[in-house]
Amino acid sequence: MSFPDWMSGHAACIERALETALPAADAHPVPLHDAMRYAVLGGGKRIRPLLVLAAGEAVGAPQAALVAAGCAVELIHAYSLVHDDLPCMDDDILRRGRPTVHVVWGEALAMLVGDALQAMAFEVLAGVDRPGAARMVAELAAAAGSRGMAGGQAIDLAAVGGPMTQAALEDMHRRKTGALLRASVRLGAMCGDAPAEALARPGAGDTHSRLDDARARLDQYAEAIGLAFQVVDDILDVEGDAATLGKTAGKDADSNKPTYVSVLGLAESRRMAADLHASALSAIAPLGEAGRRLRELADLIVLRRS
Amino acid sequence: MSFPDWMSGHAACIERALETALPAADAHPVPLHDAMRYAVLGGGKRIRPLLVLAAGEAVGAPQAALVAAGCAVELIHAYSLVHDDLPCMDDDILRRGRPTVHVVWGEALAMLVGDALQAMAFEVLAGVDRPGAARMVAELAAAAGSRGMAGGQAIDLAAVGGPMTQAALEDMHRRKTGALLRASVRLGAMCGDAPAEALARPGAGDTHSRLDDARARLDQYAEAIGLAFQVVDDILDVEGDAATLGKTAGKDADSNKPTYVSVLGLAESRRMAADLHASALSAIAPLGEAGRRLRELADLIVLRRS
Repeated sequence: MSFPDWMSGHAACIERALETALPAADAHPVPLHDAMRYAVLGGGKRIRPLLVLAAGEAVGAPQAALVAAGCAVELIHAYSLVHDDLPCMDDDILRRGRPTVHVVWGEALAMLVGDALQAMAFEVLAGVDRPGAARMVAELAAAAGSRGMAGGQAIDLAAVGGPMTQAALEDMHRRKTGALLRASVRLGAMCGDAPAEALARPGAGDTHSRLDDARARLDQYAEAIGLAFQVVDDILDVEGDAATLGKTAGKDADSNKPTYVSVLGLAESRRMAADLHASALSAIAPLGEAGRRLRELADLIVLRRS
Repeated sequence: MSFPDWMSGHAACIERALETALPAADAHPVPLHDAMRYAVLGGGKRIRPLLVLAAGEAVGAPQAALVAAGCAVELIHAYSLVHDDLPCMDDDILRRGRPTVHVVWGEALAMLVGDALQAMAFEVLAGVDRPGAARMVAELAAAAGSRGMAGGQAIDLAAVGGPMTQAALEDMHRRKTGALLRASVRLGAMCGDAPAEALARPGAGDTHSRLDDARARLDQYAEAIGLAFQVVDDILDVEGDAATLGKTAGKDADSNKPTYVSVLGLAESRRMAADLHASALSAIAPLGEAGRRLRELADLIVLRRS
């Protein structure tokens, strides 16, 4: 199967699963459910669920668990966008080419939409019918929480207007966007965890250590593409235009936010993206054919134009 | 042990567990962690964790799991208060006699504090070392989500200024405050779930059906005290003063929010609280001595003066 076919098939599968998991638009209370569906459905590249699926397929994980985990990370991502767009945060009125949730439904409901989507993410993930479901919840919660995504946003808040070193910028992005991308890859790999009783069978030790090795490689991959994703975002923010990005280009630079481009310059940022790309690919090279979709996703993340 | 001793001992135990579970105030990023601790520690009656503990003790659940589950519900409660107090919601500047989080740290960080506390709740609950931990996460997430607490708040938002029937008011509160109180009791009971292998032992069927029966009674109890809690809140809002409540008395009436008192009148609201109290007590009467703390908590919730 070609990569575009794999991607569109899997993205459609995630879309259907999200559509089914979300309460119906006419379920009580209607404005909240209507707005939740608006925030989640019909847009977005679904990069995070695709990472879950690609990592899971690399270790032979069952599809149903991967789809549930993919929906969970996408719900966390969607909640974070709704809150990020609020007037007290980035004050964005456009997202994926459409008015943001608070523009349509008001600030208070937009905050509740984000809150409810976060809860829903954990409800969906906890429903994964596997012995390790609780460990997966802990993984996603840590990635979303004060040491992960929310922590990165708090650092971002404090940083506006001030100078930032490359190390501080990397630390911020490792949390703000990197943590959830890493969690996506890790959750996919965790869906492939052998249950305890299987590990107790003769010869299972080999499987276990092969899985451990694959998981360590996936972590390296996830770390690299997590950073690369943001570097490329910052490059596109400078290069792109509103039509391609579906959001206001140059906004980060205008709002005086530190970016890789402002700290390192455009040429050095491009070099950094290329280095991270190479490092992601070399981490998963030993996986061979099993790592194909992960390789293709790394290419997509670094070479995308929007 | 007297009820005040049981309560203060258990509240102190929850306080210590929250203190340990929360990131240190000097952990990076500092303002976020500092504000999270401010929002959670050193205040609150800890009614929800006490319900977890009382319900769990009624079915013989292990203490460690109960304390973790108690912390998780309290973290959800604390996050909801921080978000509720924001200018776009209730715009409260005082909580438990202290300035609210957004007054001290600003709106954007207050939103992140709530977001991070919600994630932390699920991380703590997922860490409960029991086979049913994932089911407990699903239970708490449903209670916090769009059909539970967040949904109740969305109904509340839409209701300000408009007329409301008693049925609509009950539906709103069943979600807004009732869902989390119910979940507290249910999580306590779930901590007592026998693992699957124990149920397979001879005679375990009896234990199982006894547990099922106890759980059904606990649900009835939780339903009644969940509603009673809000009725009493509304009565106290009219009767109380700021010194006792630690928040502005009469605020709900001033802001034209529908309350039990505005819909039913004070006398009828008092009668309703007494009926719910009686119904909670009769539900757990067959539990005998095992239900003692639950009875005492029902008394506390209905007879409290603040």
